Amino acid sequence: MERSYIERVKDSFAEQNVMRLIGARLSRLAPGVCEIEIDRRDDLTQQNGYIHAGIVTTILDSACGYAAFSLMPEGSGVLSVEFKVNLLAPAKGEIVRVRAEVKRSGRTLTVCTADAFSVEAGESRICATMLATMIRTTVA
Amino acid sequence: MERSYIERVKDSFAEQNVMRLIGARLSRLAPGVCEIEIDRRDDLTQQNGYIHAGIVTTILDSACGYAAFSLMPEGSGVLSVEFKVNLLAPAKGEIVRVRAEVKRSGRTLTVCTADAFSVEAGESRICATMLATMIRTTVA
Amino acid sequence: MERSYIERVKDSFAEQNVMRLIGARLSRLAPGVCEIEIDRRDDLTQQNGYIHAGIVTTILDSACGYAAFSLMPEGSGVLSVEFKVNLLAPAKGEIVRVRAEVKRSGRTLTVCTADAFSVEAGESRICATMLATMIRTTVA
Amino acid sequence: MERSYIERVKDSFAEQNVMRLIGARLSRLAPGVCEIEIDRRDDLTQQNGYIHAGIVTTILDSACGYAAFSLMPEGSGVLSVEFKVNLLAPAKGEIVRVRAEVKRSGRTLTVCTADAFSVEAGESRICATMLATMIRTTVA
Repeated sequence: MERSYIERVKDSFAEQNVMRLIGARLSRLAPGVCEIEIDRRDDLTQQNGYIHAGIVTTILDSACGYAAFSLMPEGSGVLSVEFKVNLLAPAKGEIVRVRAEVKRSGRTLTVCTADAFSVEAGESRICATMLATMIRTTVA
Repeated sequence: MERSYIERVKDSFAEQNVMRLIGARLSRLAPGVCEIEIDRRDDLTQQNGYIHAGIVTTILDSACGYAAFSLMPEGSGVLSVEFKVNLLAPAKGEIVRVRAEVKRSGRTLTVCTADAFSVEAGESRICATMLATMIRTTVA
Repeated sequence: MERSYIERVKDSFAEQNVMRLIGARLSRLAPGVCEIEIDRRDDLTQQNGYIHAGIVTTILDSACGYAAFSLMPEGSGVLSVEFKVNLLAPAKGEIVRVRAEVKRSGRTLTVCTADAFSVEAGESRICATMLATMIRTTVA
Repeated sequence: MERSYIERVKDSFAEQNVMRLIGARLSRLAPGVCEIEIDRRDDLTQQNGYIHAGIVTTILDSACGYAAFSLMPEGSGVLSVEFKVNLLAPAKGEIVRVRAEVKRSGRTLTVCTADAFSVEAGESRICATMLATMIRTTVA
């Protein structure tokens, strides 16, 4: 029986152990779109007390991967080929939320963009942006 | 009294809480060079059991930052402007070690390159590469 | 007397000799936005007869620079720190048009995104995308 | 009869019309390595009289493509997936020379790095660096 893209993304997300380590949750899924968020925690910070750019990148990358994966046929896997991140502002606030979208979906490669927002006292402010290339793999 | 670059990097590294969370350690420091490594742990993985690209990026980014920081005058701080990472092979093995070097050091901006290696049964194999821009900040 | 951002961009564009070489023209300017276009010419192509990625990059980069420059105070100059380009489809058709926007404008650094479109028989199709960092310089 | 990688690269380079427009020449070829150079010309400059970053990118990109192509089997074609360039210093001097090398060669994707040098009064100085992903295509 064919599984929906939502089931496939949720299953794969559950297998990313690092998502549990950093407290990440899938907050939205649509075809070609994925949102992930984390709460600010003291153990995720860099030297100034902001969320480390690598942790923001971790959820930006997973969100791009799942945005791409959501458009791939059953039986596909997804891996990151490369990504670039610009850090636009400190990742402070109570929550960091990322939103990824597919920019162009090809048979082998998918290009995604994603923005990260820090949410402080209900106000959302962009703190980073990613441009990424994902590759479809075929699972045996 | 002026602190050496080694003291300054070690102090800042100790303030990066996320380094403790992922078990990262500074393994080498020289002027314009920084190495960091982590052990493979089950809680750092993505869906295929490899270290998540975002975690590899976390230590690549910190290593670039400290390679840049090691050449900056006392009283400076360092922040990432942007980075790009190419994932070249799965980050498997017992250890992931990254090595960053300053490519060009300017008054405001410093450009660094870094490679990540997965070490398996004593053999080291490149698994990712970063090209990054760091900015010097002045601490009050 | 103060010059408008439109005059400042037009003057600088006129000083970019390479724009004349490749037949580029400024097609739209607004605060934080710049569009540039070129006609397809046989002498701009790569081995398959498409416009070379480097030429598409040339107008993407200038458009990002002028989008950033349009928001800077009089007396500023602008230089590219770095950019990343994803090639999404062959740059064919009669015209390649790029549109750059400022994503985040800072005192020193400005981050821009830009898309390139190939226009064929009146239809516009995305062929490349850029994420770029520009730096403000002060002209003596 | 099988053609050598040198013949294949030279033939493809000769088909890149834009190389003639900007006066580029292949200056060195080895397996996984390609060098290209251009002379400084007034019609290649940006607003400060330096070679435009897009023109430097044009030869960086072609050099990466041919470094990758030199390792591919006969019957392959090569296209750029994406690249990132850091501009490290003004591209001035009499000559700009780029040198690209394959960092990792895969069946489908090849990752290359390239440096650009401006040569002034016999002295060579790095002015830009590229990290790029190339894809192998199969020609009918």
